Amino acid sequence: MAAVESGAAGSSDLVLLDVFGSPYAQRVRIALAEKGLGYERVEQDLAAKGDLLRRSNPVHGKVPVLLHGGRPICESLAILEYLDEAFPSTPPLLPPPASDPYARARARFWAEYSDRLHVCGKRLWLRHDGEEVEPEARAEMVAVLRALDAELAGKEFFGGEEEGKFGYVDAAAAPFAAWFLTYERSGGISVAEECPGLAAWGARCARRESVAANVYTPEKVYELVQEYRQWVLGR
Amino acid sequence: MAAVESGAAGSSDLVLLDVFGSPYAQRVRIALAEKGLGYERVEQDLAAKGDLLRRSNPVHGKVPVLLHGGRPICESLAILEYLDEAFPSTPPLLPPPASDPYARARARFWAEYSDRLHVCGKRLWLRHDGEEVEPEARAEMVAVLRALDAELAGKEFFGGEEEGKFGYVDAAAAPFAAWFLTYERSGGISVAEECPGLAAWGARCARRESVAANVYTPEKVYELVQEYRQWVLGR
Repeated sequence: MAAVESGAAGSSDLVLLDVFGSPYAQRVRIALAEKGLGYERVEQDLAAKGDLLRRSNPVHGKVPVLLHGGRPICESLAILEYLDEAFPSTPPLLPPPASDPYARARARFWAEYSDRLHVCGKRLWLRHDGEEVEPEARAEMVAVLRALDAELAGKEFFGGEEEGKFGYVDAAAAPFAAWFLTYERSGGISVAEECPGLAAWGARCARRESVAANVYTPEKVYELVQEYRQWVLGR
Repeated sequence: MAAVESGAAGSSDLVLLDVFGSPYAQRVRIALAEKGLGYERVEQDLAAKGDLLRRSNPVHGKVPVLLHGGRPICESLAILEYLDEAFPSTPPLLPPPASDPYARARARFWAEYSDRLHVCGKRLWLRHDGEEVEPEARAEMVAVLRALDAELAGKEFFGGEEEGKFGYVDAAAAPFAAWFLTYERSGGISVAEECPGLAAWGARCARRESVAANVYTPEKVYELVQEYRQWVLGR
């Protein structure tokens, strides 16, 4: 149930309620790894939610929830910001508040926007066998990919001008890069053809230790999506 | 088209693209008023979007957009955070980052959550004449109101322990207090009966100068909602 990882000083009271395959939980694990913060991971059963999850996130009952000293922080992006603020001596995801408010606002916009990948993705893969992909769903996904690609603008990471800076938007969006193969097989959208820069960013993320350790491979994601699909559509 | 308001030093290059009745734009105007920041307001026609809006928010084409020195910041809550960071000598909405990361994370959660009021509200009022309110829609709205009421926990404002502190969640949620009458008339939900504390908070917000100047009265909201409803359902 619980995997205990070696911890940086001061982080031994971090507990993460999560589900390994949840891209929102993956954001948090990636951020914790980037910061070198240790934590106890407590895998949740969303089909039979436990007391700790219900108490920690009474409003949504969702993962991820980060407990720090017993106090729950909910919502993946709020947790990322919290980690920057509560552990200021760790590598920051966002630029410091005083240095570049505009870059911070921009990163917040794009991190939030990356959720669209998951929302649009579902419209591509949650279909009965033989059912056509809606043209609007495909068009919307292409628009989302292109918008992200334009924001990346050929940089190595979204993190900013600084060379090789993996930041807030990267941590937020990296889990979805492992779904690109699913978009291709289920929705007929080749990210490599539509947005080569974004596809290269995804491959770069996949090679990064913080991501590789915390995200399923694209093949595994596709396989799990098929299982989930059968389960949902078969009910 | 443009209303110019007197400005605090350093804010003369703020331009707000908005629509007076948009609760998301109202959040930003309330925050600007709380901070004493002047700005030029440029009302937008969402039925015929102008070039400035399209260029400033190419992804969503929505209001509000705040232009600061010509650079666009999009998404109401990102704008609120930006104002705290770009104008650090003005009264903060959130506690400073170093002082209370937990309170900041919690405020982010609840500010985001307050959007549920608008989403649930629409399910109450966007109905044909004679069409029943769905019981699930009513139940969900009551749950949302109760969750906010529990978070308020009898305080004067959401802003925090500090007496009378109007903060980030208040600025985010105050525009929806003017919709409580619409929830009552359209959805049969009396906020005063369900959640007297939250209703009193709403009345307190309505009396606050920053809110009163930037939000329609509850009667006016109800009237505009009826017009909008006829227009949408009549199409």
